[in-house]
Amino acid sequence: MPFITDIKTFAALGSGVIGSGWVARALAHGLDVIAWDPAPGAETALRKRITNAWPALQKQGLAPGASQDRLRFVSTIEECVRGADFIQESAPERLDLKLDLHAKISAAAKPDAIIGSSTSGLLPSEFYESATHPERCVVGHPFNPVYLLPLVEIVGGRNTSAEAIEAAKVIYTSLGMRPLHVRKEVPGFIADRLLEALWREALHLVNDGVASTGEIDDAIRFGAGLRWSFMGTFLTYTLAGGDAGMRHFMAQFGPALKLPWTYLPAPELTEKLIDDVVEGTAEQLGERSIAALERYRDDTLLAVLDAVKSSKASHGMAFGD
Amino acid sequence: MPFITDIKTFAALGSGVIGSGWVARALAHGLDVIAWDPAPGAETALRKRITNAWPALQKQGLAPGASQDRLRFVSTIEECVRGADFIQESAPERLDLKLDLHAKISAAAKPDAIIGSSTSGLLPSEFYESATHPERCVVGHPFNPVYLLPLVEIVGGRNTSAEAIEAAKVIYTSLGMRPLHVRKEVPGFIADRLLEALWREALHLVNDGVASTGEIDDAIRFGAGLRWSFMGTFLTYTLAGGDAGMRHFMAQFGPALKLPWTYLPAPELTEKLIDDVVEGTAEQLGERSIAALERYRDDTLLAVLDAVKSSKASHGMAFGD
Repeated sequence: MPFITDIKTFAALGSGVIGSGWVARALAHGLDVIAWDPAPGAETALRKRITNAWPALQKQGLAPGASQDRLRFVSTIEECVRGADFIQESAPERLDLKLDLHAKISAAAKPDAIIGSSTSGLLPSEFYESATHPERCVVGHPFNPVYLLPLVEIVGGRNTSAEAIEAAKVIYTSLGMRPLHVRKEVPGFIADRLLEALWREALHLVNDGVASTGEIDDAIRFGAGLRWSFMGTFLTYTLAGGDAGMRHFMAQFGPALKLPWTYLPAPELTEKLIDDVVEGTAEQLGERSIAALERYRDDTLLAVLDAVKSSKASHGMAFGD
Repeated sequence: MPFITDIKTFAALGSGVIGSGWVARALAHGLDVIAWDPAPGAETALRKRITNAWPALQKQGLAPGASQDRLRFVSTIEECVRGADFIQESAPERLDLKLDLHAKISAAAKPDAIIGSSTSGLLPSEFYESATHPERCVVGHPFNPVYLLPLVEIVGGRNTSAEAIEAAKVIYTSLGMRPLHVRKEVPGFIADRLLEALWREALHLVNDGVASTGEIDDAIRFGAGLRWSFMGTFLTYTLAGGDAGMRHFMAQFGPALKLPWTYLPAPELTEKLIDDVVEGTAEQLGERSIAALERYRDDTLLAVLDAVKSSKASHGMAFGD
């Protein structure tokens, strides 16, 4: 393979919630990490986020030599990427910004280092337009919290080589992730299109006063959400068809798709709707701090991941099955 | 409270996948169950489904005296409901059928027995139109597998009394469930509107050849699905906003709702699309039988439920929090 896949040094550009998550994951896997973010106070915020994530990563098990001390924060893009075996960009979602950033990143990077972008909203054919060696440039779209959730969507642009996709799969797998190659370069990729559809409907339910944010969250987490932690909608519905299976299910429930149950366009984000969402979630949060809720989320995610892994193992399956 | 809430005898009308699930849940909670279903072979199919569910219910812990032998299958609606303290109807989703059925059920039932319907697609104000004592008639909409998933959506119709909603909450809670009162009588209630939005988008992704059913399932179960087992979208996004919180998140990601990411109308259920879904799910199923997959699902659900319960407890929370 013409690209570096046995990575020792991980470059992270951008250290917001997503970028910090990548740094935490890479550190926990025993890598040296070099981070860059031009925002004021970025280094302090990054180190604080990693400290909050670390207990969960310790519980999950750190790689030999893993340490928060192996993070170096630098002040230029070139310093960040020059020695890196792999580069992950998690900058704001603006095309002009990413175009400019990737021209600089790719020019300074080793030519055989894979470059990944955390973008969820932009297309790699577009923002890698001015990259040096664009054949090694991919999207590696993660999910929050990046240091615990296994899914990463890999998407190539028009110039990305098949070898780069394979190399990215190897690299992300070595970081404990479950890569999913999105074979067509479509806006939103796969997961966010599904999440966005649900989110839009949820906002309508709030907007119409049908339910509070807490009630909507309850409708997911005590029902379908428990299934979705290990089984997707299609296989779930295969079971709902009973022994008659999926063709029966489609015949029985397919026509319901035509019912005017769900709203189509997104609701206007009025001040009232934003207030309702903010007040609803504030009530759900209660007395807890964001950091405390993150620790609860991390602990529970770990427990759920362990539960799924153990159950799969006892049924002769690997976690990635 | 004017209704029976301390129930000993559970009447189940309809014993398909959902009806069987109610029977299994009621038996596991130590109740006497009387079931009725006019379909040929219904009793045999019901007993087989309960046998397949029983190992999971044993693992979860049966109530004292719980036994599959406490199921009696009868041949008339009147025999089924006459002595029952609580009645759950899980008949096919046809208004004419449910209208007729509920006229008969409610006329034969004790006047203070709560009557619940498992409907997901019809409105209680409509199908309870001809019921005797309609004030005690509610929707109690469960999720598959009914014997393990806690969520039940309770919906009243125009004649349902507030006391009946409260009584239904008590009854479903006594069966180990987590009731969610849907305060407005809207088609699809809350959960199915969310599920349907996601399902419609998933069918489009298959229809356009973007992804297979297995890839779409992977996009959920290795990412957001793990979170959704214990935290809904609103609270999750509150965390994604970082310390700036939900107002920041709405400002940052709200505009993306206007992107043409997701399709609006449902796709036509062409033969080709149905084939793609059926073949995709057959491939996911592989060599496993439906019954074997159900056992895997049940074991994993139990493990996930346990994981969520333990983690909540260690953070000082009850499971229903």
